[in-house]
Amino acid sequence: MARIVMKFGGTSVANLERIHNVARHVKREVDAGHEVAVVVSAMSGKTNELVGWVQDTPKVAGASSPFYDAREYDAVVASGEQVTSGLLAIALQSMGINARSWQGWQIPIRTDNAHGAARILDIDGSEIVRRMGEGQVAVVAGFQGLGPDNRIATLGRGGSDTSAVAIAAAVKADRCDIYTDVDGVYTTDPRIVPKARRMKKISFEEMLEMASLGAKVLQVRSVELAMVHKVRTFVRSSFEDPDAPGMGDLINPPGTLICDEEEIVEQEVVTGIAYAKDEAQISLRRVADRPGVSAAIFGPLAEAHINVDMIVQNISEDGSKTDMTFTVPSGDVEKAMQVLDQNKGTIGFDVVQNETGMCKVSVVGIGMRSHAGVAATAFKALAEKGINIRAITTSEIKISILIDGAYSELAVRTLHSAYGLDKS
Amino acid sequence: MARIVMKFGGTSVANLERIHNVARHVKREVDAGHEVAVVVSAMSGKTNELVGWVQDTPKVAGASSPFYDAREYDAVVASGEQVTSGLLAIALQSMGINARSWQGWQIPIRTDNAHGAARILDIDGSEIVRRMGEGQVAVVAGFQGLGPDNRIATLGRGGSDTSAVAIAAAVKADRCDIYTDVDGVYTTDPRIVPKARRMKKISFEEMLEMASLGAKVLQVRSVELAMVHKVRTFVRSSFEDPDAPGMGDLINPPGTLICDEEEIVEQEVVTGIAYAKDEAQISLRRVADRPGVSAAIFGPLAEAHINVDMIVQNISEDGSKTDMTFTVPSGDVEKAMQVLDQNKGTIGFDVVQNETGMCKVSVVGIGMRSHAGVAATAFKALAEKGINIRAITTSEIKISILIDGAYSELAVRTLHSAYGLDKS
Repeated sequence: MARIVMKFGGTSVANLERIHNVARHVKREVDAGHEVAVVVSAMSGKTNELVGWVQDTPKVAGASSPFYDAREYDAVVASGEQVTSGLLAIALQSMGINARSWQGWQIPIRTDNAHGAARILDIDGSEIVRRMGEGQVAVVAGFQGLGPDNRIATLGRGGSDTSAVAIAAAVKADRCDIYTDVDGVYTTDPRIVPKARRMKKISFEEMLEMASLGAKVLQVRSVELAMVHKVRTFVRSSFEDPDAPGMGDLINPPGTLICDEEEIVEQEVVTGIAYAKDEAQISLRRVADRPGVSAAIFGPLAEAHINVDMIVQNISEDGSKTDMTFTVPSGDVEKAMQVLDQNKGTIGFDVVQNETGMCKVSVVGIGMRSHAGVAATAFKALAEKGINIRAITTSEIKISILIDGAYSELAVRTLHSAYGLDKS
Repeated sequence: MARIVMKFGGTSVANLERIHNVARHVKREVDAGHEVAVVVSAMSGKTNELVGWVQDTPKVAGASSPFYDAREYDAVVASGEQVTSGLLAIALQSMGINARSWQGWQIPIRTDNAHGAARILDIDGSEIVRRMGEGQVAVVAGFQGLGPDNRIATLGRGGSDTSAVAIAAAVKADRCDIYTDVDGVYTTDPRIVPKARRMKKISFEEMLEMASLGAKVLQVRSVELAMVHKVRTFVRSSFEDPDAPGMGDLINPPGTLICDEEEIVEQEVVTGIAYAKDEAQISLRRVADRPGVSAAIFGPLAEAHINVDMIVQNISEDGSKTDMTFTVPSGDVEKAMQVLDQNKGTIGFDVVQNETGMCKVSVVGIGMRSHAGVAATAFKALAEKGINIRAITTSEIKISILIDGAYSELAVRTLHSAYGLDKS
């Protein structure tokens, strides 16, 4: 007997047939004698529809600003998960399974007051645990909690993953299964590299880098949370037949296990290749090389909610001037240029240049901490294909390389081969 | 300064433009210095969609019974009002009005455990009153409350009217305005009688008879509640220009006031003509005329949830046998025939006959308590048109007459004229 949290995203509950399919997945685990809590997202498309209404309401009211109260946004948008939690409870009951739905405020899942992107402060899992002990499946509306002043709060996009991991931590689950429309985490995007392999295991740290670098399987926040609470998290497919052989395997179900690195006996040097397209490169030329200049540049950008990613600073020849290069999402480049222009006086630079259509390719692997020459392999492989490197940043377990976007697929394929990831 | 509860139904909040229009109605009252609470239904069509999903879920799950947990039904269906309450709060804020949404569980509106058709037990209006005093408009999701075990409970169809009246009673409102797609209560259906007049005032008792007899302006439950708590209730149109002259009149806004009969100085003998089509007549011939026979007939029908309306018992010639005639909605007639057949032994009758396509026409008026000959006027008028009367029942303030459905419009028009209701 184990205690399992199962999470199903929007495409997995897109309609009544899909919800029935989810119920079959749940039934399999219940029939095996496990205690089960299920976390569900809204039907795919629903959240967008609700968000659209919220955004359009001030316009229709003729308001001069598109402002809306994030607390009301949350009340409206959280209704999507409320619907699926109730429907799944009914589907389970129809299959003879004792189940009840739980809204965030009913548990409660307490959050801070950052409505629209709230953080979970505390989950009282006691009542759910008690009822699981009596054989009742808890069907939890994901993405939502109870904020201050008795208000509904939502956790922001991908929040249902976070709900699932947080609940798994709260009820001390043996496993948190994230059911999604892919069957696991791959060494890279299989649409680009057909030889990409599904990993059996990946460490939290590696998954964090993969997730934040564009492998959109799991939200970064949920991986962070899983890492902190050491929640063993499986990424697996909701589209496989719930009763196919091995689906109910307690130790090795089909999918990718995200776990503590200690659980991964044989560390790969490089685990996977991630990429993020549509990056823009901004370069400030001949910036005064003085203390506080970075703050002068990146402070105003942060205030404008521009997500700066790679930052590279070149040492100047004489030590008095420097070049500063960084990347932002292409969509933010115009706003970033405005902000820099407005702050030209306080920053002090000669010219600012930008180029869009860049791609950031990243090599991720926990094993590179103890292996030299990992970066050199990437540089050599890219050079052999004539791919120009525009910027490089590194961390303990990651090398990120900025290249021209036209070469992104070629670069991903090249690196995937160079690190031997093509072989099964 | 007055305290006003305003309720808007599904067609009044059907889309963002309509919600903006509702916000304009609210703004008018706020600008006049009143304290305002607003109660909203789900967007029209939404509740039906959600109910459809709930009903279809067991089928999709392959369940042998169409059973679903009414508590989960409530969690799913209540989401419709949650959405409109949040959107209206945003629309109001966009117009510079301080507003917040309230779900049933946030107030709370406590109900019993009759999920799907719950009764309100208690409303804690203190926090809403406090905030109204600070100038905040309360936007309350109608139709819902908080049942036992911290579950969402819905009040059943038309529940938002009941929510509005109950909140008006809880916050001691001066007035409860029910905004709907008609501009008041008419002496009869204006689609049948173009000369039908909008009433300025109608007593609670009369409105109860009108509502339960087919004038679908207000739910019977909400009128009962308004009568018990003496909530002065206005029925008025949400489709009129919110800023048209007189719309903000505190004493006599356009619409119909439903109030205590003491407030109606000049009682009309007959106030209005109601009708209900699609009635079926069932007659049991030569029933043994003994104590307990009525219970033997109507007990099993009640258990089968068949709504029996008019009941007429004829005295038999020799006192040993009697004929028993009653009406049910046409849709229930088959089920009723089955139930009677199954209980033929215990009831004891010769034959059972039924006829569908009947219409019940009712003459309503609080003044008939003190006027003789009111019924005779109806019988004479119908006879002159050659309309055959199949059954008659009377109460203190109502005469109901069962006729062939083909004559329903003619009968309504005839009675409307006979009681002088055509004249303005």
